[in-house]
Amino acid sequence: MINIIETPSKNEWDNIIERPTKTVDNIESIVFDIFNKVKSKGDNAVKEFTQKFDKCSINTLSVSDDEFINAEKSISEELKNAITLAKNNIESFHKSQISSVNKIETSKGVKCWQEKRAIEKVGLYIPGGTAPLFSTVLMLTIPALIAGCKEISIVTPPRKDGSIAPETLYTAKLCGVKNVYKVGGIQAIAALTFGTETINKVYKIFGPGNQYVTVAKQLATKFNVAIDMPAGPSELLVIADDTSVPSFVASDLLSQAEHGADSQVILVTDSKKVITEVEKEIESQLENLTRKDIAKQAIANSKLILIRAKEEILNFVNLYGPEHLIICTKENDYYCSGIQNAGSVFIGNYTPESAGDYASGTNHTLPTNGFSKNYSGVNLDSYFKTITFQEISKEGIQNIGPAIEIMASAEGLQAHKNAVTLRLNENE
Amino acid sequence: MINIIETPSKNEWDNIIERPTKTVDNIESIVFDIFNKVKSKGDNAVKEFTQKFDKCSINTLSVSDDEFINAEKSISEELKNAITLAKNNIESFHKSQISSVNKIETSKGVKCWQEKRAIEKVGLYIPGGTAPLFSTVLMLTIPALIAGCKEISIVTPPRKDGSIAPETLYTAKLCGVKNVYKVGGIQAIAALTFGTETINKVYKIFGPGNQYVTVAKQLATKFNVAIDMPAGPSELLVIADDTSVPSFVASDLLSQAEHGADSQVILVTDSKKVITEVEKEIESQLENLTRKDIAKQAIANSKLILIRAKEEILNFVNLYGPEHLIICTKENDYYCSGIQNAGSVFIGNYTPESAGDYASGTNHTLPTNGFSKNYSGVNLDSYFKTITFQEISKEGIQNIGPAIEIMASAEGLQAHKNAVTLRLNENE
Repeated sequence: MINIIETPSKNEWDNIIERPTKTVDNIESIVFDIFNKVKSKGDNAVKEFTQKFDKCSINTLSVSDDEFINAEKSISEELKNAITLAKNNIESFHKSQISSVNKIETSKGVKCWQEKRAIEKVGLYIPGGTAPLFSTVLMLTIPALIAGCKEISIVTPPRKDGSIAPETLYTAKLCGVKNVYKVGGIQAIAALTFGTETINKVYKIFGPGNQYVTVAKQLATKFNVAIDMPAGPSELLVIADDTSVPSFVASDLLSQAEHGADSQVILVTDSKKVITEVEKEIESQLENLTRKDIAKQAIANSKLILIRAKEEILNFVNLYGPEHLIICTKENDYYCSGIQNAGSVFIGNYTPESAGDYASGTNHTLPTNGFSKNYSGVNLDSYFKTITFQEISKEGIQNIGPAIEIMASAEGLQAHKNAVTLRLNENE
Repeated sequence: MINIIETPSKNEWDNIIERPTKTVDNIESIVFDIFNKVKSKGDNAVKEFTQKFDKCSINTLSVSDDEFINAEKSISEELKNAITLAKNNIESFHKSQISSVNKIETSKGVKCWQEKRAIEKVGLYIPGGTAPLFSTVLMLTIPALIAGCKEISIVTPPRKDGSIAPETLYTAKLCGVKNVYKVGGIQAIAALTFGTETINKVYKIFGPGNQYVTVAKQLATKFNVAIDMPAGPSELLVIADDTSVPSFVASDLLSQAEHGADSQVILVTDSKKVITEVEKEIESQLENLTRKDIAKQAIANSKLILIRAKEEILNFVNLYGPEHLIICTKENDYYCSGIQNAGSVFIGNYTPESAGDYASGTNHTLPTNGFSKNYSGVNLDSYFKTITFQEISKEGIQNIGPAIEIMASAEGLQAHKNAVTLRLNENE
């Protein structure tokens, strides 16, 4: 069932780290077509594609006050309390990311600093699909609100009866976001990119989605919209040794495997015994899962890998660049300080990956598919741009002006030089 | 010559902020074709396109030790000293952006924090063209080195004789970068995206370029490479009142205008007198510029705008989102605290924009074309990814575990719940 790979040679690594992701070239023309129609026909096109893809007819794209109120009524106190606990932790962690302004003097009379400003208009994509992912509402709205984004628009695909899951609406309202629109898929990204009668154009789009949404977000960047990161199927890599608890490790691997048939989970260990025991645990736990069929397919993509030396384990993991990384070993510090490429790291036997999905406080919108090599997960800074400032005194321009004149001349940019010369010669 | 617009009504603003940028749709197929050829034929394709576009035949793509040594010999002591001053200031400012780790406890027993890791392999594009832009070498390599990027590759188009400007080579070597490749344009971006026999594949590409390079960078993102930001022609907006010095303002506007015929410069002022005087100064200074013809074309795209109320000036500037913003007024604090969208801000009469291009210490790789609404300029963080960490104790999982169980259940993700349940029930 699951693949077991013992002490692979280095030239096999590139093959092992391959994701089971499908290629998406053939859907680009579909995406482009939908973008064009939403751009020219606005709400009508959005509704038409919602009918076509979500099989439901929507009159009003905006969620109404009544819908928010009814949603709140249908949520249990138990769930409300759980969401509140998660919200508090996510708020604490993202507030801890607020940075202060650091003004420095680079030369005497030359002051430089950075200030952050919120991106004014952001669009948040909340997947619908097999389960209502209201946790993603927390993860995407809380940092947007802390950053101070002025316009926050949530898009999420409606269910066949035209409604949105009450958990999603309750969480949006709890966070203070009122602009929730019943639209998902490519048409949602197109609406956020161009704006329609109902939905405002945004400057940056956040959130996970299927391969259609992913390609649509990529296309949006051509129309001057920024995106959080490219997305792909969820994945988890666990580094475990004989201090780990095999039933815990298996439960973590299965928690990612249940996300989708194209998810991938990997165990890397220096112990054959751990492999044997984790495999046994996976088999027995798998049988009792409600999403057994999905998890089984993901497990077929997955690997239990024996690598003896910790240096090699670290090299392998850095080459893989996992979205989620669990470390349960007696060398946790070694791996934590050496890890270069990962989205979010979970340390020790009592830190399941699902803690980060919901309630530890870290963000669960993370780079998959090896993108941890070049992208950060969503964090407070994702909602800011940084502006640099400089203020130079009369003395300051005397100090650095001559260097600017020489460099501008050498680059053949005489007008650049002249702007300095005029100031240097002011009193002559 | 230059356009003067007096107290435009708000419904004219969208029109006024339009950039003179050309559309680039028709060059996508050229870019795609070059990508395919470089991907399949490597160095040979790179050399072929260099022959075709740069009109020069290159045997060895890498710059040799001898070329570095000869370059150094040809640079004057005066220029070396100027570059060193600039380097020191840029280093000071980018080092001041190093942030410390902030570990917090979100719930008792739940520790969360972020750590930054350098992107391991970065590619830096240094334009060739009409002038050797060695200042861009400083701007792109210094933060890469401070961040700790392991592999830094510089690509830059060769001159017709197959050489690279000595200023560029000298600066690269001074900064400690040895991998400099004689390749520019689309083929350079393709080589960094796929790797060739000589040039290593990178994870992120930085640097400005013409519209071909810009479209190539956009295409690179489809092949899992990150980019610093989309690029466009340079631009400057000056806010000035009667405390500004018209000759300084004119010299700043002209310094951006000389970049290219498609550059744009804008003055916004509450004083007709300032418009009149700045216009006169532009006319007289323009005549003496070596790049007069270019600057004249840019000036034809440019605007001197009268807006009376400071609130309206601020709104207009935020709508425009200038790459460079100079503020010379008696209300500098008002504008600095209110500015939301700008790349880099220059405050007061003695802070010419060219100071930031070369030597104040701030980065000159900035978002153009209104991209300051959603992108930061290049800064130290551009070379990092952020990884989140969490470490939960046995007590910690007791505190947040029940909330995770409830939320995972509500999302229909039973295996996520199970990973917590197993840990909570360990001692039962």
